Amino acid sequence: MVTNPQARLIALDWGSTRLRAFLLGGDGEVLATRQSEHGASTLSGDAAFAQAFTAITQGWPALPVLACGMVGSQHGWREAPYAPCPADAAALARQALRLDERIRILPGLMHDAAQPDVMRGEETQIVGALALHPELAEQSCLVLPGTHSKWARVEAGRVTGFATHMTGELYALLRQHSVLARLMPADAASPPSSQAFLAGVEAARADGALSHQLFAVRTLGLFKRLPPEQLPDYLSGLLIGHEIAHELAAGAPARLALVGDPALCARYGLALGRFGIAAPLQLDNTAPAGLWRLAQTLGL
Amino acid sequence: MVTNPQARLIALDWGSTRLRAFLLGGDGEVLATRQSEHGASTLSGDAAFAQAFTAITQGWPALPVLACGMVGSQHGWREAPYAPCPADAAALARQALRLDERIRILPGLMHDAAQPDVMRGEETQIVGALALHPELAEQSCLVLPGTHSKWARVEAGRVTGFATHMTGELYALLRQHSVLARLMPADAASPPSSQAFLAGVEAARADGALSHQLFAVRTLGLFKRLPPEQLPDYLSGLLIGHEIAHELAAGAPARLALVGDPALCARYGLALGRFGIAAPLQLDNTAPAGLWRLAQTLGL
Repeated sequence: MVTNPQARLIALDWGSTRLRAFLLGGDGEVLATRQSEHGASTLSGDAAFAQAFTAITQGWPALPVLACGMVGSQHGWREAPYAPCPADAAALARQALRLDERIRILPGLMHDAAQPDVMRGEETQIVGALALHPELAEQSCLVLPGTHSKWARVEAGRVTGFATHMTGELYALLRQHSVLARLMPADAASPPSSQAFLAGVEAARADGALSHQLFAVRTLGLFKRLPPEQLPDYLSGLLIGHEIAHELAAGAPARLALVGDPALCARYGLALGRFGIAAPLQLDNTAPAGLWRLAQTLGL
Repeated sequence: MVTNPQARLIALDWGSTRLRAFLLGGDGEVLATRQSEHGASTLSGDAAFAQAFTAITQGWPALPVLACGMVGSQHGWREAPYAPCPADAAALARQALRLDERIRILPGLMHDAAQPDVMRGEETQIVGALALHPELAEQSCLVLPGTHSKWARVEAGRVTGFATHMTGELYALLRQHSVLARLMPADAASPPSSQAFLAGVEAARADGALSHQLFAVRTLGLFKRLPPEQLPDYLSGLLIGHEIAHELAAGAPARLALVGDPALCARYGLALGRFGIAAPLQLDNTAPAGLWRLAQTLGL
């Protein structure tokens, strides 16, 4: 048993492919971090989730547990139904599901616009970002790049709406399985080319159809206008550029922050510069801060 | 040896995945048709192509041979460099590559616009469409749906420019490998739903980002607003709708014709109706007619 007299909460960021556990102290400070490959999509059934939980918290004190992410989906440990937009930390906390005496699972967030949209885990990162940077609460746009990028609008501390873009997944599909992959080196051995990336961003800004512009990855390679090792960066720029162009079509938000993987956020930051948004705030994983804030709201 | 006293030409439509051979008579009429799975992408090296050719023409007379398609690509039998746009049948014929005494391979077509674009095989189908329907030659838009759909503009008998959309490939990738696939039945067992297809077309007409709208395939399934078996049709409608919306953004062409697989052309015809283009001309594979016309131009 590791003794952590100051430990107050076990916070779980339990996504599809990865489980991250944080032991948090009395001010929400991270005392210890652990990670496993027991993502929610790799587990099935109560026992499997319980076992993954026991393994990752081995030796930690029997503190209250708050979890966010795909662990609360239909195919997770137990379904925590989506909270509707607009929602603030209090609304999310109210819908937390009590799995047992110790463990609570946070709901995802749903936005029922022209098309319904959902997130699980990102709502907690947003709460964390607002806790760490209160100046974002009044009015801002939070961008969480990833497999399924989220663009969330925040007003008066509430998430009023959001949109998902399958940018990361499209990149992976096209990079690995499409005709475009044939001209590219299998591994990203060389350092990323920001020049090729920005050329893709600029093409996307010209606002052609994505399904057409993607084919340029092939033809630019075919006619040797871009070397093979730069084609993945051009593809990345096209996809990220399209996402940004559409999200900023109605005008740039007063405040914009990027939340997530630093390398990916840097890539988005570079692209945003081409849309007139210079040096946006970049935050690393804010899930622990969000889980702490929501635990406080719940009185854990 | 099959005796065909009227036979005049062996025409090969030699694509990536399939080889189709036609024995043509003195008026270009198809006397016999054969097909094999020896597409250009399945073959490597001179001997493999020669063998596939010998196999499919077994017993046919030793007539002149004209081939179009990926057989003339960098990784084909022999590279026949692209002809530049604008190009008519005479320009294509001039650039035909003489493989040996008997066999000629037609070039593909290249359009060097904002982004370079290419086709191989479709240029021959276009020549065939214009031969069969001379009224298309003055001014028209020819749409060839497929893995890589082509939208070609024709003026005064010449292809002045064209754009490729990776619509069919995106559909296959998303249908088979993406997160969207999980909610869909593995096989298209049920008959296609034109209602779900048109709902996807309508969503695309609203002009959101494709990367965002694709995620609706997931959420509409998640919230049971579309039954699983209709999700592939909705996805198809979204992708085809985006392609059409962008191509018609500058206005509808005076004449539009669809060329290719009848079921796919019917699908495009349905979608085009939503864009105000009613009952466009639909032509099945026009490659034999194109090869015949180009053979005449070459004096074979």
